[in-house]
Amino acid sequence: MLGTLRNPGRTHDEEPSVTTQATSGARVPRDREHDYTEEQAARRRAFVAEQTGASLQHVGHYSVDPAVLPGNVENFTGVAQVPIGLAGPLHVDGEHAKGDFYVPLATTEGTLVASYNRGMRLLGECGGVRTTVVDDHMQRAPAFLFDDALQARSFGEWVDAHLDDIRTAAEATTRSGKLTYIGQHQIGNLRYLRVNYTTGDAAGQNMTGKATLAACEWIRDHHPDRPRFVLSGAIDTDKKHSQINMLMTRGKRVVAEAVIPDEVLQRVMGVRTRDLFEYRQIGMVGAFMSGAAYNGAHAANGLTAMFIATGQDVANVAESHAGVTYAQLLENGDYYWSTTLTSLIVATYGGGTGLPTQRECLELLGCYGAGKVGKFAEICAATVLAGDVSLTSAILAGDWVTSHDALGRNR
Amino acid sequence: MLGTLRNPGRTHDEEPSVTTQATSGARVPRDREHDYTEEQAARRRAFVAEQTGASLQHVGHYSVDPAVLPGNVENFTGVAQVPIGLAGPLHVDGEHAKGDFYVPLATTEGTLVASYNRGMRLLGECGGVRTTVVDDHMQRAPAFLFDDALQARSFGEWVDAHLDDIRTAAEATTRSGKLTYIGQHQIGNLRYLRVNYTTGDAAGQNMTGKATLAACEWIRDHHPDRPRFVLSGAIDTDKKHSQINMLMTRGKRVVAEAVIPDEVLQRVMGVRTRDLFEYRQIGMVGAFMSGAAYNGAHAANGLTAMFIATGQDVANVAESHAGVTYAQLLENGDYYWSTTLTSLIVATYGGGTGLPTQRECLELLGCYGAGKVGKFAEICAATVLAGDVSLTSAILAGDWVTSHDALGRNR
Amino acid sequence: MLGTLRNPGRTHDEEPSVTTQATSGARVPRDREHDYTEEQAARRRAFVAEQTGASLQHVGHYSVDPAVLPGNVENFTGVAQVPIGLAGPLHVDGEHAKGDFYVPLATTEGTLVASYNRGMRLLGECGGVRTTVVDDHMQRAPAFLFDDALQARSFGEWVDAHLDDIRTAAEATTRSGKLTYIGQHQIGNLRYLRVNYTTGDAAGQNMTGKATLAACEWIRDHHPDRPRFVLSGAIDTDKKHSQINMLMTRGKRVVAEAVIPDEVLQRVMGVRTRDLFEYRQIGMVGAFMSGAAYNGAHAANGLTAMFIATGQDVANVAESHAGVTYAQLLENGDYYWSTTLTSLIVATYGGGTGLPTQRECLELLGCYGAGKVGKFAEICAATVLAGDVSLTSAILAGDWVTSHDALGRNR
Amino acid sequence: MLGTLRNPGRTHDEEPSVTTQATSGARVPRDREHDYTEEQAARRRAFVAEQTGASLQHVGHYSVDPAVLPGNVENFTGVAQVPIGLAGPLHVDGEHAKGDFYVPLATTEGTLVASYNRGMRLLGECGGVRTTVVDDHMQRAPAFLFDDALQARSFGEWVDAHLDDIRTAAEATTRSGKLTYIGQHQIGNLRYLRVNYTTGDAAGQNMTGKATLAACEWIRDHHPDRPRFVLSGAIDTDKKHSQINMLMTRGKRVVAEAVIPDEVLQRVMGVRTRDLFEYRQIGMVGAFMSGAAYNGAHAANGLTAMFIATGQDVANVAESHAGVTYAQLLENGDYYWSTTLTSLIVATYGGGTGLPTQRECLELLGCYGAGKVGKFAEICAATVLAGDVSLTSAILAGDWVTSHDALGRNR
Repeated sequence: MLGTLRNPGRTHDEEPSVTTQATSGARVPRDREHDYTEEQAARRRAFVAEQTGASLQHVGHYSVDPAVLPGNVENFTGVAQVPIGLAGPLHVDGEHAKGDFYVPLATTEGTLVASYNRGMRLLGECGGVRTTVVDDHMQRAPAFLFDDALQARSFGEWVDAHLDDIRTAAEATTRSGKLTYIGQHQIGNLRYLRVNYTTGDAAGQNMTGKATLAACEWIRDHHPDRPRFVLSGAIDTDKKHSQINMLMTRGKRVVAEAVIPDEVLQRVMGVRTRDLFEYRQIGMVGAFMSGAAYNGAHAANGLTAMFIATGQDVANVAESHAGVTYAQLLENGDYYWSTTLTSLIVATYGGGTGLPTQRECLELLGCYGAGKVGKFAEICAATVLAGDVSLTSAILAGDWVTSHDALGRNR
Repeated sequence: MLGTLRNPGRTHDEEPSVTTQATSGARVPRDREHDYTEEQAARRRAFVAEQTGASLQHVGHYSVDPAVLPGNVENFTGVAQVPIGLAGPLHVDGEHAKGDFYVPLATTEGTLVASYNRGMRLLGECGGVRTTVVDDHMQRAPAFLFDDALQARSFGEWVDAHLDDIRTAAEATTRSGKLTYIGQHQIGNLRYLRVNYTTGDAAGQNMTGKATLAACEWIRDHHPDRPRFVLSGAIDTDKKHSQINMLMTRGKRVVAEAVIPDEVLQRVMGVRTRDLFEYRQIGMVGAFMSGAAYNGAHAANGLTAMFIATGQDVANVAESHAGVTYAQLLENGDYYWSTTLTSLIVATYGGGTGLPTQRECLELLGCYGAGKVGKFAEICAATVLAGDVSLTSAILAGDWVTSHDALGRNR
Repeated sequence: MLGTLRNPGRTHDEEPSVTTQATSGARVPRDREHDYTEEQAARRRAFVAEQTGASLQHVGHYSVDPAVLPGNVENFTGVAQVPIGLAGPLHVDGEHAKGDFYVPLATTEGTLVASYNRGMRLLGECGGVRTTVVDDHMQRAPAFLFDDALQARSFGEWVDAHLDDIRTAAEATTRSGKLTYIGQHQIGNLRYLRVNYTTGDAAGQNMTGKATLAACEWIRDHHPDRPRFVLSGAIDTDKKHSQINMLMTRGKRVVAEAVIPDEVLQRVMGVRTRDLFEYRQIGMVGAFMSGAAYNGAHAANGLTAMFIATGQDVANVAESHAGVTYAQLLENGDYYWSTTLTSLIVATYGGGTGLPTQRECLELLGCYGAGKVGKFAEICAATVLAGDVSLTSAILAGDWVTSHDALGRNR
Repeated sequence: MLGTLRNPGRTHDEEPSVTTQATSGARVPRDREHDYTEEQAARRRAFVAEQTGASLQHVGHYSVDPAVLPGNVENFTGVAQVPIGLAGPLHVDGEHAKGDFYVPLATTEGTLVASYNRGMRLLGECGGVRTTVVDDHMQRAPAFLFDDALQARSFGEWVDAHLDDIRTAAEATTRSGKLTYIGQHQIGNLRYLRVNYTTGDAAGQNMTGKATLAACEWIRDHHPDRPRFVLSGAIDTDKKHSQINMLMTRGKRVVAEAVIPDEVLQRVMGVRTRDLFEYRQIGMVGAFMSGAAYNGAHAANGLTAMFIATGQDVANVAESHAGVTYAQLLENGDYYWSTTLTSLIVATYGGGTGLPTQRECLELLGCYGAGKVGKFAEICAATVLAGDVSLTSAILAGDWVTSHDALGRNR
């Protein structure tokens, strides 16, 4: 979702990159008027064959109509066919997601679907996964430049005092985005603003970019210093993991939690909750020492597979895979396991969600379109928990218990 | 690549998750003998329709033969069709990659292809991108458990003394993996080993997992304490960004660099190198303050699109998007711009690289199969640089220069 | 400042640690009634001599009256004599600090005073250091425990709705502390509250601890769930560096900035501003890659020496040394250099500030007592900038220019 | 320890900062020939009185002979008297430290000594603290600059091939420093070397700086490119916390560990081991989410007080307070508690260790002089553990159990 970062005042077709040939290599064929057609796609595949000798026969096999692709891709040439496996049922007892779900996972990594499936089965035996979206913030974070730190600080006060006007300017650009609050962080003579929004069922990076640009222009035009700014001072940390995301949320902050009885874990996974908890200490310490973005097992795997299947902006795996596992061994031996995804960026509207296979996968989850993003976020988190339960148990069952049996655990 | 983490001694088909129905929801249909067939896929699509009412018509449209999918997916049901746009030519002057490349980008995010394309054009006008793989390490990181810290420390010395034997045990499990070194990090009575390998043209997570399991078992069987261990102590940070990855490399550490003349940047992007450098300071500070995984613009976007197109393990975007931008403004006004991806995990062999559309996209880059992974890594890094040049310039052209023109920069 | 964390309802003298001898080693002599006397101190020195053979002759040489030490130390035995060197004049043009200051630096590290002194001289030639306190937050951060994430989220809303009552409860315990806002961060079924205060001229850790305990008890008594809590959930990050401190401020966030003409830098330091800026890029990248708490040179050195001299809680160097250097090379060759200390914890009242030598050193800066903490914070930041200018220049003058002269910089 | 960073070839007395008066403020009196005398100190105190009106009467009260201070401080004016309280006995069962120790804590923070004392008593009842130094590395980390990444990579190979020569060059500058290994980290066309040493009983920052300068000059003179370098590329992270320190050790990596029976903890602290472990999960998560340098309670407090008392470079609290707490609740209810200080920088020789009160405090611990640094490091770690046990128990006893009693823990 890079649209807002384009050079304003230029449309895409006007970009010189498309109209002139600049390097020794031949230019990718493009038709200014009618580029989103099967003919153009075929022409580009032929171009590839000519230039590189590579056939794109399978790439050229698809059912999507090129005419629907403006806004999703340029220089359309064909598709990647990513295999989808079905995992489930995943029993979710959330606020928005309730019931049994079959989760489409688009992946080329063997065992992934089976592993998530196994975790879902275990959690089903435990009564399912509770899920809750606990926070919701999408942001764009400009930096304003001043002569000195004092000016920058005063500017911050001015921003607080003019929040209503700024909000009005920002929200004028969007129907669904709502400016919630502006975080401020000063370094030297720079004042970074982290402008936070709720964005309805869209992921919202474009929406917040556009709204924040309007906000910045309003500020620039109304603040007596007419301050220079840059639309991103890098603390939105778009498409990057960051500690600020983990702390202050980016996208949805969503919790999946379950209580796992020792008996069920032993029966299904061959692992004791006590061992799980012992291992939790080791994994926490390892994650802390190594400065990891996640102290659980592998949120990225399930999320990526769901993101590809459902038309999410898959690059947001960079942010979305971060999170915090928090667990307790209860006195009765049950294991409380929670996963909190602190920066889950998802949409059920806009972006790739309306493309044919992607929409079908969202519909399969009952998550296509307006009013569904909370439900989808909850299913994502529940899936992550299932995958973490499964992989963690596998690690312990394979390596840990063996040595445990041989050697005893408290010699 | 989760294979090595399966419960050893059990095959996938024996897993109870597949043979019993455990929850209220109906079980996904599966045929133990002949599951990788179009009939089974269709049966699952019908199951979905029955259970959820959702049609998977487009998902069912594909040219991949289900029979090739064992090892890539379970419960195969169809495919995600992810549109591919073509960017290029990208002129690369690397060690392994030389010449003009057309880069297939599988994405649903509008502007992405156009933006990378524009960056490639600019870099082409600057003579292209130099690329170098400067380090190469894939790892699995077990933790060994001892009674006290002194035992754990002694164990570390023992490991150093027995490195050759450990290497022999590890390498017996793989043809292409080579154990390079074992990093050691102690916390309390735990000794974390970070076992490093080169893995040929494979990404190597499975290979290193299997080899390290063999190494651990050799250690357990030969060390006088018969120590307990867990195959992952979480400092391999598989599928997670981490600082240890950034410091010590995970996968390929690859540099893309270019020198951009001020004149070219102004002409193509409408931005001065001086402004770029001024902005670099702001972006560096923003990234540092927010604890970001990358201090450049958006490595994740290009990498994700390439990963989907070429059959990489896309979840590795979690690790691969991390990196460090380092730039200097030269005395003549040229801008030296480097991007170092510190944990780029890629393959040209194994995983999803052999699937039909994925293989075609690798072939289009001349990167399919043995001996190509360095070349592919270099093209990835060059693509990232192109995208960063383009987006950064867009940010400045849109917001910065405007205010600059109006207000002057050194009032 | 650990007082608030004591077991409530017990006074210090009642603690069993003091009244029984528990180990094989002899107990440190203590007089319950009259422990803060020279006799008792001498008795303890004699005890040491007897137990260990070590003479504490110099430790026993001091002018502080033991009778003033309750609240500052237990088992008083003597003093550490830490040499103080005087650096200055440091010319500061701040909001609170204006004019020339002589900075007392208590250190045993040779060159430190000389190095800071040199930096102060340079900055004086540049017109001095501008300083601004841009934010001010001290905090205690309890965690509240719930059955599930939904309860925890609802609790968060309840806290927002009852902020006035919570503030009243908190502020009833303190004359100078003001509760400013409560940050909330949820993980699983835990709701972390980061309760922020301004604390007048005190550092405020005790004050905020006490006030937050009152707030927590009010919450527990009034919220329908009567939730369990722990007074610190570790995100106050007391006595630890943290990213949350860098982002959200702990103590004072204070900026020191100066514009350094190339001519002055060359004359005084033998270094060009261009070289400084080239090196800035290298240092920024190094700090980013290594996950450092500060991307400048050595804030810890000057701060520690000032903290010891002036009776600060020196352990707060852990937090206070963190910060962000932000610089720009201006078009005329001048160098804008700013240092932002993001978590500077200082006091001019309470703690050790009233002890004899400590008070004298504060008085020497015109910073003793009420209404002085902003001034002191500004002098701290200006001192840090002086030290960073000096050390950075030394690094470049010693190693960089030499090779530069020999080899040229743009071959 | 800034000595090696001075401008080489200049002695301190030749620095212009001392010989010219540059600013409006009056210059601090200094005598080039005989500056380390009581007369000069008194003259400076008089100067302060004249300039600022502040009396330095107590600062002027000391027993240290100014003549011993060259190398420790410049512009000596007097001393800070920092009160010392005695905690102990601390029972240590380490490799180097064995027996009961009385720990001198120089602090102005009330409760600190009492709190550590209480923890020592508890640990004494548990049989004392086991301690082990598990790693030892001091470093200086230059960066070498090249035209491109390929050159930089080749340089890295050259360094590996010439390690013996480099070591010889480095070790020629020092009697006790031994170059152990050179870590390499490349970013763009920069090659960062992290040169690691053991440094005997000194902290070693100066020693390693000098040795590394010699190594760099040898490299520059022998490598065909005659590469430019800067002595610190900032990844030594001198005087800063960093993740690289936590991972790769800076100074001593030392573990303190104890097994605490539930009965003892309840009797002495009024807290159950189960509660401690429940709280551990909360504190770990809080530390992880906030990006903290330490996931224990307050290492900085005890270390700072010991550092001031014993003449350590107190600014190293910035690095030394970092670490990792790792704990397990054993099946019998005992609590295994370990603290690993990953970057403890200490000395028993050089720096401030030989000054009168500082030496006395080291002697009191049996840690003055050659061959004692391991012992001192172990006592430091044991003290930290005692303080963490005490404070953590206090938090729980005060706030946790109360609510627990009222409400029950597993409703």
